[in-house]
Amino acid sequence: MSGSQPRHALHADSLVRVDERTLLREVLVKPGMCGHNALLVGQIGDWTWEAVSELCGLNVFQAADAEGSPTYLSFYYYQVLGDRAFHLRTPTFGDRLQVVSTCYGLGSESVLTLHRLSHAGRGLPPKVSVEELLNARIPECLYVQNVNRWIRRGVTGNKELYAAAPVGFQQAHLATPAPELSPRIAYDAARRRGAFASEAGERPAGEWTLPYEVDLARDLNGVGLLCFATYFSIADGALAKVWRLLGRSDRSFLDRLVVDTRLCFLGNAEPGTQLSVQLRRSVRGEAEAVERFDIQIIEEESQRMLAVVALTCDRRGE
Amino acid sequence: MSGSQPRHALHADSLVRVDERTLLREVLVKPGMCGHNALLVGQIGDWTWEAVSELCGLNVFQAADAEGSPTYLSFYYYQVLGDRAFHLRTPTFGDRLQVVSTCYGLGSESVLTLHRLSHAGRGLPPKVSVEELLNARIPECLYVQNVNRWIRRGVTGNKELYAAAPVGFQQAHLATPAPELSPRIAYDAARRRGAFASEAGERPAGEWTLPYEVDLARDLNGVGLLCFATYFSIADGALAKVWRLLGRSDRSFLDRLVVDTRLCFLGNAEPGTQLSVQLRRSVRGEAEAVERFDIQIIEEESQRMLAVVALTCDRRGE
Repeated sequence: MSGSQPRHALHADSLVRVDERTLLREVLVKPGMCGHNALLVGQIGDWTWEAVSELCGLNVFQAADAEGSPTYLSFYYYQVLGDRAFHLRTPTFGDRLQVVSTCYGLGSESVLTLHRLSHAGRGLPPKVSVEELLNARIPECLYVQNVNRWIRRGVTGNKELYAAAPVGFQQAHLATPAPELSPRIAYDAARRRGAFASEAGERPAGEWTLPYEVDLARDLNGVGLLCFATYFSIADGALAKVWRLLGRSDRSFLDRLVVDTRLCFLGNAEPGTQLSVQLRRSVRGEAEAVERFDIQIIEEESQRMLAVVALTCDRRGE
Repeated sequence: MSGSQPRHALHADSLVRVDERTLLREVLVKPGMCGHNALLVGQIGDWTWEAVSELCGLNVFQAADAEGSPTYLSFYYYQVLGDRAFHLRTPTFGDRLQVVSTCYGLGSESVLTLHRLSHAGRGLPPKVSVEELLNARIPECLYVQNVNRWIRRGVTGNKELYAAAPVGFQQAHLATPAPELSPRIAYDAARRRGAFASEAGERPAGEWTLPYEVDLARDLNGVGLLCFATYFSIADGALAKVWRLLGRSDRSFLDRLVVDTRLCFLGNAEPGTQLSVQLRRSVRGEAEAVERFDIQIIEEESQRMLAVVALTCDRRGE
């Protein structure tokens, strides 16, 4: 065997800049970015940081404010929209995906990033927009919108976080979403009311409260904050327990079809903190075809709300 | 801004083939591959699969046997050797790493992969060997050895796994480690005796048994098996509980300095299975400078041993 590439060589992942606000990548799905866990959510979050780095003039992975204090591009709102053919648990080892990522401007301290994931080789256009995400989704694609805010930590640790614009952050060249298409409508309501807006025809169908303790061995990221992907794991873990309380099998939980996940991040927490996770179930449609879980993640002692979550399941054909 | 690369552009991750058994990469550390969790362990595992794909003639991510049944390059032995300056929790957002990966032959159904991680820019040579890993480690580097075996699933699910060589796996061109340097010595002992060999001067210092249930929302990989990185999380989670039982603070757990982690994977488990995690603590050296935890992960009902773990902590200067 010589130094030349052998015939079996994997296609390398590729990343190209389509225009001043769009990146296009083709990637091989690896075990570390798929499964019955939040690894794909984490991978997409990495792509958000990379998109902002490439498109907004600074290295997000090492950003700092004018005083030299580290600033983090924290996740504030994270929505994942899929369908029966492509949802969060669809990609598996060896799949090749096309990923289109676009940044929109949301002012000097925030940025909106959209991603569209699909199986590679479909010839889909290398662009995505809020209009497409909200009103014209292509079937068998996974759409994601992330709103990120620049923050820095206060002296008291993870509880105290401040807005902080880093040096070098450029967003004037980005388009701004039309007000009626902005994710602000969704997350402002979630913050004010502790729940995302409900849908017409929803009927309440149960409530539960479950304890959770911030896990020292799994929940913290590389700078000691509760990782954004952990919030998804906390919500999914509570949902798994409710699934059993509803008399359903573990297998049916693994096979659940979540077509819309929304998460608004309102606070962080110290390692070891006791949380309480409150779930409300509602259903709508014939034969309860749509099931929705509204979840609040709350710091037990202070009753601070750390996150508001909504998970919408498609139960047709179960 | 034009279509040309802006000045702030991140260095793209690079991957080159050094020779027929060695890969060299330079990577930016992203949130999805670091932290107080098993994400770096998972990332290194992905690099193992990629190294075997590039160096052994097949696409590991989609391997199959002669009948077309999927085969998986399962993790059998995973050792991580660090020092006070570079251990599993050292890399953080924005660090640039040099990673050298080399495959060794272990017969038609197994392969040994070594990795050496270090901060980029040190000018370290693009090669690593079992001799270096065992007898001549360079300071401030993280060394990893992975032994992987080809398996396929039986009809009864995750409990039943068989050896299975996939089509296209080439290993004749790889070097074979000298018998006295082979990891086989370590993992054969672990399998036979339920513990890795102990060190001279170790004194027993406590035993605990803790329950764990396989987590439907976090523990399974993209093909529904208990993920190899999950075993590290289970061991670390049990260790965190023992840390409190020893009267130590959560902060001191997060600051623990584990310089040698060994894990031998003996079995897999179904989602929802009850496990029991047994820990034995031993200490050696002046002022108990070295502390070691021997851990067994056992399926409660069958008493099947799923994994044998050893974690060695450096407590000097605490």
